[in-house]
Amino acid sequence: MLLTTLATQAAVKPKLDRVEPPNWWAGMKNPHLQLMVHGQNISDTKVKIDYPGVRVEGVTSVENPNYLFIDLMLADTVKPGSFPILFTQKGKTVQQYTYKLLKRRKGSAERKGFSDSDVMYLIMPDRFANGNPSNDSMDGMLEKADRSDPNGRHGGDIQGVIDHLGYIAKQGYTQIWLNPVLENNQPKYSYHGYSTTDFYKVDPRMGTNKEYAELSAKAKAKGIGLIMDMVFNHIGSSHWWMKDMPMKDWLNGYPNYELCNFQKTVAQDPHVSKEDYNQMYDGWFVPSMPDLNQKNPYVANYLIENSIWWIEYAGLSGIRMDTYSFPDMHMMARWTCRIMTEYPNFNIVGEEWDTSPAIVSYWQRGKKNPNGYKSCLPSLMDFPIQDALTKSLTGNSWMPLYGTLAMDFLYPDPDNLVVFADNHDTERFFSSIGENLGKFKLGIAYILTTRGIPQIYYGTEILSTGGANGEGDGFKRKDFPGGWAGDKVNAFTGEGLTVQQKTAQEFVKKLVNWRKSNEVVEHGKLMHFIPHDNIYVYFRYNDKGMVMVILNKNTEAKSLSTARFAEIMNGYNSGHDVVSGDNITDLSTITVPAMSPMIIELKK
Amino acid sequence: MLLTTLATQAAVKPKLDRVEPPNWWAGMKNPHLQLMVHGQNISDTKVKIDYPGVRVEGVTSVENPNYLFIDLMLADTVKPGSFPILFTQKGKTVQQYTYKLLKRRKGSAERKGFSDSDVMYLIMPDRFANGNPSNDSMDGMLEKADRSDPNGRHGGDIQGVIDHLGYIAKQGYTQIWLNPVLENNQPKYSYHGYSTTDFYKVDPRMGTNKEYAELSAKAKAKGIGLIMDMVFNHIGSSHWWMKDMPMKDWLNGYPNYELCNFQKTVAQDPHVSKEDYNQMYDGWFVPSMPDLNQKNPYVANYLIENSIWWIEYAGLSGIRMDTYSFPDMHMMARWTCRIMTEYPNFNIVGEEWDTSPAIVSYWQRGKKNPNGYKSCLPSLMDFPIQDALTKSLTGNSWMPLYGTLAMDFLYPDPDNLVVFADNHDTERFFSSIGENLGKFKLGIAYILTTRGIPQIYYGTEILSTGGANGEGDGFKRKDFPGGWAGDKVNAFTGEGLTVQQKTAQEFVKKLVNWRKSNEVVEHGKLMHFIPHDNIYVYFRYNDKGMVMVILNKNTEAKSLSTARFAEIMNGYNSGHDVVSGDNITDLSTITVPAMSPMIIELKK
Repeated sequence: MLLTTLATQAAVKPKLDRVEPPNWWAGMKNPHLQLMVHGQNISDTKVKIDYPGVRVEGVTSVENPNYLFIDLMLADTVKPGSFPILFTQKGKTVQQYTYKLLKRRKGSAERKGFSDSDVMYLIMPDRFANGNPSNDSMDGMLEKADRSDPNGRHGGDIQGVIDHLGYIAKQGYTQIWLNPVLENNQPKYSYHGYSTTDFYKVDPRMGTNKEYAELSAKAKAKGIGLIMDMVFNHIGSSHWWMKDMPMKDWLNGYPNYELCNFQKTVAQDPHVSKEDYNQMYDGWFVPSMPDLNQKNPYVANYLIENSIWWIEYAGLSGIRMDTYSFPDMHMMARWTCRIMTEYPNFNIVGEEWDTSPAIVSYWQRGKKNPNGYKSCLPSLMDFPIQDALTKSLTGNSWMPLYGTLAMDFLYPDPDNLVVFADNHDTERFFSSIGENLGKFKLGIAYILTTRGIPQIYYGTEILSTGGANGEGDGFKRKDFPGGWAGDKVNAFTGEGLTVQQKTAQEFVKKLVNWRKSNEVVEHGKLMHFIPHDNIYVYFRYNDKGMVMVILNKNTEAKSLSTARFAEIMNGYNSGHDVVSGDNITDLSTITVPAMSPMIIELKK
Repeated sequence: MLLTTLATQAAVKPKLDRVEPPNWWAGMKNPHLQLMVHGQNISDTKVKIDYPGVRVEGVTSVENPNYLFIDLMLADTVKPGSFPILFTQKGKTVQQYTYKLLKRRKGSAERKGFSDSDVMYLIMPDRFANGNPSNDSMDGMLEKADRSDPNGRHGGDIQGVIDHLGYIAKQGYTQIWLNPVLENNQPKYSYHGYSTTDFYKVDPRMGTNKEYAELSAKAKAKGIGLIMDMVFNHIGSSHWWMKDMPMKDWLNGYPNYELCNFQKTVAQDPHVSKEDYNQMYDGWFVPSMPDLNQKNPYVANYLIENSIWWIEYAGLSGIRMDTYSFPDMHMMARWTCRIMTEYPNFNIVGEEWDTSPAIVSYWQRGKKNPNGYKSCLPSLMDFPIQDALTKSLTGNSWMPLYGTLAMDFLYPDPDNLVVFADNHDTERFFSSIGENLGKFKLGIAYILTTRGIPQIYYGTEILSTGGANGEGDGFKRKDFPGGWAGDKVNAFTGEGLTVQQKTAQEFVKKLVNWRKSNEVVEHGKLMHFIPHDNIYVYFRYNDKGMVMVILNKNTEAKSLSTARFAEIMNGYNSGHDVVSGDNITDLSTITVPAMSPMIIELKK
C-alpha cells in the first residue's frame, strides 16, 4: 500500500500555486531576489530561466517538497520585461510562471518619506467608511460583517477612504497611516488586520491590491502620502503556510508554543537569562497569532522583499511596523538597513510600546547602544510622550510632560518621533482626559506644536470616546459617523454633530492646516521652561521665526509675566494667537484664558 | 576723617589669620598647589619662599585686600620638610607662616577605595554614640546640645564611633560612611553637618581633626575603611567667608539669591532654557546654605585641594559627595578626574537622588553622553534601585525591581553603584515597608546579594523607624540606643531590644559577615529571571561558584520548580541555604518559606 501511494504521488505532475514576490522591478539597488515557489512536489523539478541580466544563483529545496527557493541575481543592466520561469522534469517543462520585471516609477528610489513636515491621520479601515457595501461579506472569507458586534467586521474599506480623501485633505492631513489591509481570513476577530493570512493580497473585504494602489495615487494627487502598516512578528493562524509549513523552524515554538512574556527589557538587560530572552522573541502573542521565526533567513528574505514589493507596487511614503521590538532584533536591523539603503529618504516608524525613552531610543538609527546593537530605523512612536501627556492632563502638574521631553537627549533624532495623543490600541484621548474639552485642546495643541511628527487618530477630531474602564479594543475603534449609508450623524458633513464636536473638529482642522504653513513649528528647535503655576511654556524657533506656546491648565484665566522668558523673547514685541485669532500688542504680560492653549506667532 | 581713617588703616600691620591648605605633602602627582591666605590687608605684602623644589609661580591679589592666592610649583624632587612663607613690606617681613610639606604614608597614592568587596555602614555621628559628653556644647559654638529636640544636636561624636568600632566590625562592616563632621557653627539645625563653616576643621562638638584621623587609623586596624562625606555645592551661612567675602563671585547669586529649582534634567535636556539651567546650578538649596560658585577657579582649586588634604590627612578610603549634580558639572568633572589621577584605585560615590537610571548614569565615569560630558566619578548612589525595592516590597509585584535592574545597560559600571534600602534622607526602611519583618529580610537579602556595593544605615539593623507620614528628617536619624549613658535599651549589647529587633540584628549580621567570605556575591555576574508568582529568582556566579537567591513575597510557602533556571543550574545538585542554615539535597523543586528570602550556595 505504501509503495503504491508513493508511486502514485510520484506520477502526479508537480503543481505550481504561488511564486512570491509575484513580480519585481528592474533597477533596484540590491541585485538579489529570492523567490518562494509553492506547489505540490514542486521541488522535484529543475528551474530554468533565460533572460538577459537574470542569473539563477541557486535553487534550494527544503524539508517540505512543496517549496522551492530560487535565488536570482539581477544585473545592473537588466531591462524591464517578462520571461518564463520553467520548471522541468527530465528536460520537459512541467510548470511555468511568467515573471515580470516592471519599470520603476520615476524617482522611486529617492521618494521622500513622511517627516515633521507632515501630519498623519491614522485610520482603522474597517471602521472609517464603507465605500463598497458589496464586499462586506465575501464568499471564501470566513468572517462575515456584523456591525452590531464591537469586535466584528463593520464593512469599512479602502473605497471608503478613497471616497473621503476630500475630507482628509481639508482637515489638513498630509499622510494617511492605514491599519493593515492585507488578507486576514481568520474565523473571527479579523477586522483589525493584524493577523495576516496572505502577505501579497489585500483582504477582499477591504478591497483589492489595485484599489489600494489607487488610494495611494489619488491621495498623492491631493498631496497626501500613504503609510502601510506591516506586521513581521506574527501571522494569522489561518495563513496558508499553516496548512503546508515550509520548514520546521518557519515559526517559533511550533507546534508547542509558549506565550510571549512581553518583557521588552530583555533586548537591553545585561543580566537577562536566555530563557526569558527566547520567550520574548519566540513566544506567541496570542494563540491565534503564530510567531514567525525571522532568524530563518528564508523567512527574513521573504519579509524584506514583501515590504519592498509594497513600497514599489503602491508607491508608499512610509511604513509603520507593528510590535517592532518583538521579532528577532538582528533581522529587524537587516530589514531597516536594507530598506533605507534602497530608499535613502524614506521613513519607517516602529512601534515600541514602552513609556521609557531609554528603551524606545534603543531602536532608533544612530543610537550608540552599549551592546553594539545598530538599527536603521529612522522613527519611533513616542509612547513616552503619549503617556506623559495624559498624565499631565489628568494629574496636577505639567511635570510628567516637561520631564519626559527633557529625556530627548537619549534619542539620536527626537524630531523624527511620531507624537500622538491616542491610537487604535490606547484609550481614546477624549475618554482618557475625562471628556474635558479644555484639556482636549491643550493636548491637541501640544501634539501639533511639539517637536516630531504629529499623528491624529480618526475620530479624535470629533471627540470619539472609548476604552475607559477596561472597555475592549473594539470600543476604541468605533465607526466614524457618516461612513455608512443611513448614519444619522455625519462627521464628514457635520450633520448631527454636537456643538462641542463641531468646536473640536474646527479646532483640530485649524491647527493642522496652520501647522502646514509654519516651518518653524515643523522643523524649528524647541526651548521649554519648567512649568510654573500649572502653566507650561515653550517656544519653537529658527532663524525664520518664533512661536510661543502657552498651555494653561488652571481652571481660571491667568496673567503671565514673560520676564522669565527674556532670553528667547527679547526683540519680539507683538504677536498673533493662532487659537483665538487675537493680536497681542503687549508681550510683557499675557492674559491666558482658563484651561486653554495659546499659540502665539511672535513678531519683531 | 576719611583720610585719617585710610592713613590709620595703612599704618596697621597686615594680619595673617589663615593659610589653606594649612600644610601639604611632598611627592604628589600634581605639582601645583594654590594657597589661600587670609588676613587683614595681607594683599599689601610681597611673598617670599626659599626652599629647594618650591617655586612661587604667582601671587594673586583679588577684590578683597584681605586675601592672597599663592600658586606654588612643587618639583618632583621636593623633600618633606618645613619652610617659612614670608610676607614682606618694603623688604621687611611683617608676617610669616611655617609651611610643612609632610611625608606621605606608604602606599598613599595606590590606596584602594571602597568596592563591591565591602559593605558600608552609614552613620549620622550626632545620633550614633556620645563618646565624649564634655564636647556636647562648646564655648564659641552657637548651637548647644538638646537631645529632646529631634532637630537639635544630641551629642553623638567621633569618639562614640571609635568606642563602638568593635560592634561595627562584629556586624561585618568593612567601610564606615560618616555623615559630615566638619565645623557647622550655625545658630540652629546644625547637627546633620551639611552646612560647612570651616573646610579644614572638624566640628569641636564632634571632636578634633586628630580624633577623626584616629578613628580612621583605629578602623583601619580592624579592616574598616573610612569614607568622608563632602559638600561642594553649598556652605553654611555662618562660614567665615560670609563675613569677609573673597570675591564678588565667590558665591552664586550673592547677596540676591534665588532658590534652586531642583530640576536635575537641565544637565541633559537638549531643550533647556538658560534661565532654568542657571537656576539649577546657581540657586540656593535653602537660605541658610549659600551656593558656592565652582566656576570661579579659586573656589574650584580650594575645594579640590581640600578633598586631597583630607584623603592624605585622615587616610580616607573614599569620598561620598553630597548633591553631586548641583555644583557646576564641569568643575565636578575636573575634581573627580584630579582625584582619580592622584589616587587611581580610590573610590568616590556621588549622590544623584533621582529614580531614573538614565539620569543617574549620566554622571558615571565611562558614560558616553550625547552632549560629550565626561566625568571621572566612579560610583553613584543607586537611588533607582532603592526606590524600586520599596515599590516592589509594598506593591503587588517584583517587577519594579526586576525592571530597574534591567536598566543596568545604561551604566558603564553597575558593579560600582552603592545599593541601599535607606539612608539619612529617606524614610527608614522598616517604616517604608509597613514594619513587616519578612519584607525587611527580603530587602536586606536583596541589598546584600545584588550587584554593587551594599550600604546599611545605622539603626536599620535594629528596625529603627521614622520618616513615615511626612515626619521630618530628625526622625529618620534617631539616636542609636545604647549610644548615650543611661539609655535603657542598648543595641550594642542587645540589652532591652525586642525579640524582633534581635532577630533583625542577627539576620543582618549573619548576611553581612557571610558576604565577606563570598567572592561570587561580591564580584560575580548576575543573571535574573522574570518574577513569576510573586517570586523573584536571580543568581550570582563566576567560575568559582554559584549563589541562587529566591525572594518569596507570598504570604504562604511556595513550591518552586527550578526547570526554568536550567541554563544556569545545570550541573548543580545540592545547596546550602545561608538564611536558614538548611542543606538542600534536591534542587528540582525547592520549598520556599512564606515572605522570606533564601540564599542558596549551590554545589556540584
